[in-house]
Amino acid sequence: MRAPLRATAELRTAVSTVLEEFLHDQTAVLREVSADCDPVLDAISALLSGGKRLRPAFCFWGYRGVADDLPDEGVVTAAAALELFQAAALIHDDVMDDSDTRRGQPAVHRRFEALHREQDWEGSRTRFGLAGAVLAGDLCLSWSDELFSRSEVPAEAMLRGRRVFDTMRTQLMGGQYLDMLEQASSTQRGSAGAVDRARRVLTFKSAKYSIEHPLLLGGSLAGASTDLLADYSRFGLALGEAFQLRDDVLGVFGDPAETGKPAGDDLREGKRTVLVGLAVQNATPAQAETVRLLLGDPDLTTEGVDTLRDVLTDTGALAEVEELIDQQVGVACETLDGADLTEDARAALHALVVAATSRRS
Amino acid sequence: MRAPLRATAELRTAVSTVLEEFLHDQTAVLREVSADCDPVLDAISALLSGGKRLRPAFCFWGYRGVADDLPDEGVVTAAAALELFQAAALIHDDVMDDSDTRRGQPAVHRRFEALHREQDWEGSRTRFGLAGAVLAGDLCLSWSDELFSRSEVPAEAMLRGRRVFDTMRTQLMGGQYLDMLEQASSTQRGSAGAVDRARRVLTFKSAKYSIEHPLLLGGSLAGASTDLLADYSRFGLALGEAFQLRDDVLGVFGDPAETGKPAGDDLREGKRTVLVGLAVQNATPAQAETVRLLLGDPDLTTEGVDTLRDVLTDTGALAEVEELIDQQVGVACETLDGADLTEDARAALHALVVAATSRRS
Repeated sequence: MRAPLRATAELRTAVSTVLEEFLHDQTAVLREVSADCDPVLDAISALLSGGKRLRPAFCFWGYRGVADDLPDEGVVTAAAALELFQAAALIHDDVMDDSDTRRGQPAVHRRFEALHREQDWEGSRTRFGLAGAVLAGDLCLSWSDELFSRSEVPAEAMLRGRRVFDTMRTQLMGGQYLDMLEQASSTQRGSAGAVDRARRVLTFKSAKYSIEHPLLLGGSLAGASTDLLADYSRFGLALGEAFQLRDDVLGVFGDPAETGKPAGDDLREGKRTVLVGLAVQNATPAQAETVRLLLGDPDLTTEGVDTLRDVLTDTGALAEVEELIDQQVGVACETLDGADLTEDARAALHALVVAATSRRS
Repeated sequence: MRAPLRATAELRTAVSTVLEEFLHDQTAVLREVSADCDPVLDAISALLSGGKRLRPAFCFWGYRGVADDLPDEGVVTAAAALELFQAAALIHDDVMDDSDTRRGQPAVHRRFEALHREQDWEGSRTRFGLAGAVLAGDLCLSWSDELFSRSEVPAEAMLRGRRVFDTMRTQLMGGQYLDMLEQASSTQRGSAGAVDRARRVLTFKSAKYSIEHPLLLGGSLAGASTDLLADYSRFGLALGEAFQLRDDVLGVFGDPAETGKPAGDDLREGKRTVLVGLAVQNATPAQAETVRLLLGDPDLTTEGVDTLRDVLTDTGALAEVEELIDQQVGVACETLDGADLTEDARAALHALVVAATSRRS
């Protein structure tokens, strides 16, 4: 047996190894169909090679928080399954948003469009790109579950873990639907409840999915007590909110060289974030009109981005969001300090709080 | 304990009950996100209310073929899971093909477009429809697996079954990719290997997925012998090919009132079926030119449909396909007669051969 993993960086390597081996196995299954399927594997493999492995880290430390001497094998597999699920979510999300890039590379549907162009094939390039990405995402979704079910944990632990895994998947998709509904109906629904609605999307699309559920998954696989699971939830929801609020700020004010996304992309997509909700709530009629005119304009110029940034700053929305981030980081740290978990996990989770909320990409 | 199921019709009812109860449970999970998610559930529910429950039937009789006295519960749940997987495949397939209707109702992406129009929401209606359908399909894909894992079968049986379930999913998606590749590259790749390529797509996208894998799944869950599994494969692949060839004929020559799809829809989509492959292979230069010009034209008129139908008939392709269907039905029936399985299953599977290949919808 190998030495137990002791650091988030070691986990990252272990997860990458599991993913590579798994993709290797799946290559054989797809080659039975045809070697023509290789571009699908290449696209998935390229996407999986990137990423911060954030969800695996929370899953792992949620597990290791229960006891120091638990075997790693089961949880590393489950953690890698989360990464495949995330790949599915990203691929389909980019199709739905018609995004160009992801993790500093072309989005998967753009890769298939490029293949169609290079090969000089017939028919609609856009449709080919779309179909390739829908299928690549579907494969990741199926594989995520295939890998998860291979986690070497006792049957009871698997049952508990599966409950979290299943809820996570359904509620993420519910959250994504709510998000697109909000983009479509926000003007009609008005600014009064906009902040609440944005926070609801954030809770389900991000806080629960990215942090709370991975922690609960790890904890459940390890047989954590009800008290510890409750602390994981409190910590996860607070940090998850802070994490997403940081993401929202970076989506508007971030440096493209560091985020891997064009500047102001979230503004062009018309994302109805808490940041935007607060701006709209605090706006003068002129500022509100600016937001109405510019937000969601796919052809928004650099000047337009700057104008919207000014509104987000001048209305005090940016400052309020930074304050919210600080508050939630406070709740997360306090919960972590009071929780009954291993010291290794406490230290690692503290480090993840910093990584998730002070980052620039 | 209730009386064991004795007929395909009883199974159909049992599967529908499992699906309704499952969707009811998921409603609660999604309502935690928001009641705004109800349209997603409505769309899935409407789609699931239709369908021939063909895959569940093969799964069930593959199981019951092993012994008469096996408990139904486990296999009915697994069979219902196949129906959810099929719903996912259909929803995403319709997005990829931009189809208007499914099972006589609007395709799921069209339902979301209609919702966007009725509510007079902002932004692109097409994009909203697309996103709604991608998410609805993703939910069905996750749920299929959630339901499958609830099948009440012994752990060993579950492991065997899961192997089939996993291969089925991956290879269906590979087959779908191969299919779209063939639509895009068939002219470039030329008519020489067109029939072989079309049969390969058919094998993976249809024969294995619709019949062989469901049978093997049921057989594996029941602990079938290697011999019986081999017979299931032989039977499944032969009948599966016949089934899809029938589908291809109906897609071109079927009555829209019975198929629920507009006449000649497969021709407008440019589907590269075995039927088309044979026609191209046998065609005179003039007939080949007609196919090149008309096949895949989304605006193909009724006259265009008739012209293509004539080519498919005059080249002898239709007659060859009908002969292939007869041949494969022969192989399927012979295999069934020689297989060591229960008489109930033999009779039921014989009836399914007729239903799958003599149907008009």
